[in-house]
Amino acid sequence: MLRLLLALAFLAATAAAGGGSGARPILRSMVPNAPIEVSSGAGDAADADALFCDSWMLSVETGNAGPWTAVPTRCLASVLAYMEGDRYASDSAVVAADSLAFASQALAAAKGAAKPAWVFDIDETLLCNEPYYAVDATRMLTFNETSFDEWVDEAKAPALSSSLKLYNELLELGFHVILLTGRSEFQRNSTEANLLFAGYRSWEKLILRQPSDIGKPAVQYKSERRAAMEAEGFKILGNSGDQWSDLLGSPMATRSFKLPNPMYFIS
Amino acid sequence: MLRLLLALAFLAATAAAGGGSGARPILRSMVPNAPIEVSSGAGDAADADALFCDSWMLSVETGNAGPWTAVPTRCLASVLAYMEGDRYASDSAVVAADSLAFASQALAAAKGAAKPAWVFDIDETLLCNEPYYAVDATRMLTFNETSFDEWVDEAKAPALSSSLKLYNELLELGFHVILLTGRSEFQRNSTEANLLFAGYRSWEKLILRQPSDIGKPAVQYKSERRAAMEAEGFKILGNSGDQWSDLLGSPMATRSFKLPNPMYFIS
Repeated sequence: MLRLLLALAFLAATAAAGGGSGARPILRSMVPNAPIEVSSGAGDAADADALFCDSWMLSVETGNAGPWTAVPTRCLASVLAYMEGDRYASDSAVVAADSLAFASQALAAAKGAAKPAWVFDIDETLLCNEPYYAVDATRMLTFNETSFDEWVDEAKAPALSSSLKLYNELLELGFHVILLTGRSEFQRNSTEANLLFAGYRSWEKLILRQPSDIGKPAVQYKSERRAAMEAEGFKILGNSGDQWSDLLGSPMATRSFKLPNPMYFIS
Repeated sequence: MLRLLLALAFLAATAAAGGGSGARPILRSMVPNAPIEVSSGAGDAADADALFCDSWMLSVETGNAGPWTAVPTRCLASVLAYMEGDRYASDSAVVAADSLAFASQALAAAKGAAKPAWVFDIDETLLCNEPYYAVDATRMLTFNETSFDEWVDEAKAPALSSSLKLYNELLELGFHVILLTGRSEFQRNSTEANLLFAGYRSWEKLILRQPSDIGKPAVQYKSERRAAMEAEGFKILGNSGDQWSDLLGSPMATRSFKLPNPMYFIS
């Protein structure tokens, strides 16, 4: 990457013009960040990788990264450590708390409207496939449909615990819960088995890709299905997904909630 | 917050049904995260705050938090530490790198099209107001228009260095750079002086709120101005801002880039 440009010019300009600001501290964000990139030993390199990978993960979550094909190789270990540790659990729990806070208030505001609905994606939203990727981190570099389909057939993916909690809270509030997944119709039985194994109950419908949906971008496929839900009288107040392609398009839910997923990208 | 629900039921179901998955590790995300919330000492409480505040900052960046009025009190120190440290510089640098990668490719794709433009917000996008908030962290709890306007009049906010670098790279690529800020017309002189002090040059126009814009939500005001740019023949390829209200609405840029800002929210 191109860094270090303008560093001296910027510092010189700041020094020349900044007579009145002598007492202000110089923040890291105000100076070119060469020290982050230039390392003199293994520890420094590991620190630089950790810092970069944290920032890369944020860029994925905000959508700044745009379409991407694979986790940067230097971040494979960071991503697995994130998924296995406190941060993923905590980040997911905060999304669930945000979702529940909105749900209660939206339901009150929508009183008397059409059937209130909440749409959930499945993979990395209700179910956690980290154990599949943890077997071999390079599975995050190239998607292997055969081995992933075998994992799906096992139907043993655990629940993301904060999502299971939210799911049950939404049912208690009276939401119609609709599951909309990029998985294919032939995986219906294993998907239902896995959802039950993980503790999910009482969904209104489980929508999977039909043969006519194969090859459609997720945004198109999922938008079409949300439009069909609205035509059936559902009012989609909330939508939870780990990919922006679960959430964007038209129509959108009243509020959309992006769960973290630094393992893979779906357009 | 409601936690701990379903914990035993989930673990029991997992243990009962999961004969085939005995070798899989139990991840933090798979179990209720009570340990994150229950602390037995000051160190634990500080760790819990740090974890929560990191997750809260992520929820702000993704938009999951929705509208919010003030940084949670327990996160004031974390937010200042973030702004002053390596993470803010690194996160901003990754956004700038994402932006530049898109810009080069978008310019090639848009060859021969209308005047290619890039829109920048100013506060927490080109200029960094962290020194204003660092004077007294409680300035993040209640916005004080008088003291902030005095800070603006000083015209001494430093550049966010990765944005200055991106700004100059975009000029070199041939972009028309348009500055679109929520600041008011009466602040034009001090804003121009501050931009020059921080090293910015050669913007195409600097758009500030006119008297008729006072009270408009930022999404509306900024959308109207982007529509006017398009009517003038600009093709807005990129838009950089620290608030979702800088980026959303209609029309939108071809790609929008969300810079981090955990200090305040503008609707």
